[in-house]
Amino acid sequence: MEIYDIIIIGAGPAGLTAGIFALRRELKILIISKDIGGQMNLAHKIENYPGFLEISGMELVEKMRNHYEYLGGEIILDEVIEIDKKDNLFEIHTLYGKKFLTKTVILAIGRVHRYLGVPGEKELIGRGVSYCYTCDGPFFKNKVVAVVGGGDSAFRAAEFLSDIAKKVYLIHRRDAFRAEESIVKKVKKKPNVEFILNSVVKEIKGKNKVKSIIIENVKTREIKEIKLDGVFIEIGFEVRSEMINKTGITTNEKGEIVVDKNCSTNIKGIFAAGDCTNIKHKQIITACAMGAIAALSAYEYIKGISSS
Amino acid sequence: MEIYDIIIIGAGPAGLTAGIFALRRELKILIISKDIGGQMNLAHKIENYPGFLEISGMELVEKMRNHYEYLGGEIILDEVIEIDKKDNLFEIHTLYGKKFLTKTVILAIGRVHRYLGVPGEKELIGRGVSYCYTCDGPFFKNKVVAVVGGGDSAFRAAEFLSDIAKKVYLIHRRDAFRAEESIVKKVKKKPNVEFILNSVVKEIKGKNKVKSIIIENVKTREIKEIKLDGVFIEIGFEVRSEMINKTGITTNEKGEIVVDKNCSTNIKGIFAAGDCTNIKHKQIITACAMGAIAALSAYEYIKGISSS
Repeated sequence: MEIYDIIIIGAGPAGLTAGIFALRRELKILIISKDIGGQMNLAHKIENYPGFLEISGMELVEKMRNHYEYLGGEIILDEVIEIDKKDNLFEIHTLYGKKFLTKTVILAIGRVHRYLGVPGEKELIGRGVSYCYTCDGPFFKNKVVAVVGGGDSAFRAAEFLSDIAKKVYLIHRRDAFRAEESIVKKVKKKPNVEFILNSVVKEIKGKNKVKSIIIENVKTREIKEIKLDGVFIEIGFEVRSEMINKTGITTNEKGEIVVDKNCSTNIKGIFAAGDCTNIKHKQIITACAMGAIAALSAYEYIKGISSS
Repeated sequence: MEIYDIIIIGAGPAGLTAGIFALRRELKILIISKDIGGQMNLAHKIENYPGFLEISGMELVEKMRNHYEYLGGEIILDEVIEIDKKDNLFEIHTLYGKKFLTKTVILAIGRVHRYLGVPGEKELIGRGVSYCYTCDGPFFKNKVVAVVGGGDSAFRAAEFLSDIAKKVYLIHRRDAFRAEESIVKKVKKKPNVEFILNSVVKEIKGKNKVKSIIIENVKTREIKEIKLDGVFIEIGFEVRSEMINKTGITTNEKGEIVVDKNCSTNIKGIFAAGDCTNIKHKQIITACAMGAIAALSAYEYIKGISSS
C-alpha cells in the first residue's frame, strides 16, 4: 500500500491552498472531500479577497481547484469516517470503504450551518426553510421571507433576497449587528426590508410548506405571528464531525479544532486549517493562509525539521 | 486636526489587505508608505497565490492597490519616523514633516535584504553587487555571476539569471537548501549553473566594478578566488526600522515585531502584520491574512469589543 506524505481532508480554500503549497514542495498528497469548495461555493459575491475586486465563490473555487490540479493534485470525492494511528502513520477510512496510509493529515473540513432548533424547522427544510439564500432565494420571487441572524451572512442574505422577494424581514435577537458597516448601511436603505430586533423565532408553522413564524420580543416578551413563505436561517456555523472526536483531537467549547500558530493539533502529525479551527476571524484569505501554514508545517514534520 | 481610525504603515500585501478590510468596515484610514508593493514588486513570478496560476509581483501589487483605491483608500508616499503616544491617540511624524493623529496603527513595513557584511560589498553596490536580480539581472547578459544563498529567493535568482548570464555560481554556506524542492530540481538541471557548497564569501574585489570574489570552504578551509562580473546576494531579509525601537515595540532576536494571534503588539492600539512580524512562514498569502486580522482587531479595539 502506498504511503502518502499528506492527506488533506476538505477541499475548500484551506484544503486547496494546503494542496497547492504541498505540491510545490513535491510531496505525495491527496485531497479527500465530500464536495469541492465548501462554504465558499455559497458566497455569491466575494469583495474582500485581495486580487479580485469582486468574484463569485464558485469562480474562486474553480480557480483554486484548477491551480491545485494544474500542479498534479488529485481530489477523491468521499467522506473520511475514521483516522487510526498505526505506528508512525495514520490509516484513513472512508465512507465508501477505501483505506489510505499517510504520514500526516491536514483537517480542513470547514463548518456547516447551525440550526435554530425550533419546532417546525427540520420538518420544513426544503419546504420554505433554507440555509442557502443563493441556492433557494430565486424560488421566492415576489413572496414574503424572513432572514434570521445579525452577522455578515444574514445581511448578505437580506440584500440578495430584497431584490427578489416582495418583502424581507430581518429578525435578530439583539439590536446590534456583527455584520460589516458597509453591508448594514446598504440593507438599511432597502425599502422592502423590515428590521425586527431583540426578537427570537419560537416556531415555524406550516404543513407542507412554511405559512408563518412565531416570534418573541426578548425584552417585552410580546409574542407575534408573521405570515410568510420562506425562512432563511443565517445564525452562524458549527464544526460538525464525529470523526474528529473519535480521533481524540482537542476542540474548544464551540467544537472548533484547537491549533497553535503552526496549525498543529494536539496529535503529532495531524494539522488543521481554516474555518474548522479556533481561528477568530474566519475569512477566505485567513483560511488560505492557514492552509499554506499547515502544509509547510506538515512538510517540516515529515522532513524532521524542528518547528518553533 | 482630524483623527484617523487606523494609520497603516506600509503598502505591501499586508498593508493593502489591512486597508481593504478596514475600508469595508467603513473606518477612516490612511496608508503611509515609502513605496507601493514592497518586496512583492521584486517577485517576477508568483506561483503560489491562490486564485492565480502565475502572476508577476507587480501585477498582483497593482490589483491590490486598485482594490484599495476602488474602496476609496488613500496612500501617502512618505516615511514614518516617529510614533508618539498622546493620551488615547498616536501622533505620527513623517520624514517630510507631516503630522497625523490616529486611534490605532498597523505596522506592515516588511523586511529588507540582508547584507553579507564583507569587504567590498557596500562599495560595489550598483557596480556589480546587487540585491535584486529582477531589476539588475538583465545587465549581465553573457557575463559570469554568482548568487549567494540557499533559500527560495537564491534559487529563483539562479533560475532567472541562468537564462541571461553565461555562467551562474550558486554559493551556499551549507550543503542543504531551504528552498522548495521544485525550484531546486529545476536549477540543478541548468547546465550553466555550478553549485559551490559549504562555502562563504570573504571578500568582493574590484575597483569601479566587481572583478572577483574570495570564497572559503568552511569544511576544508580552502580559499579560492573566482573571477566574475556580478554578485547577487540573496541571504535573507531583516526588519530595518529605528522607528520601531524608538516606539518601544517588542521585537525578537531577529528584530521581528512580536505579535499575538490577533496581530497585537505589546503596545495597546498598535498592531503589526506581514513580513515585519515574527510569523514563521513569510508568504504573500500569510501576509494578506495577517493584514486582514490586524484590521479586524483594530476595528474591535476602536469599537471597544473585547478580543480573545
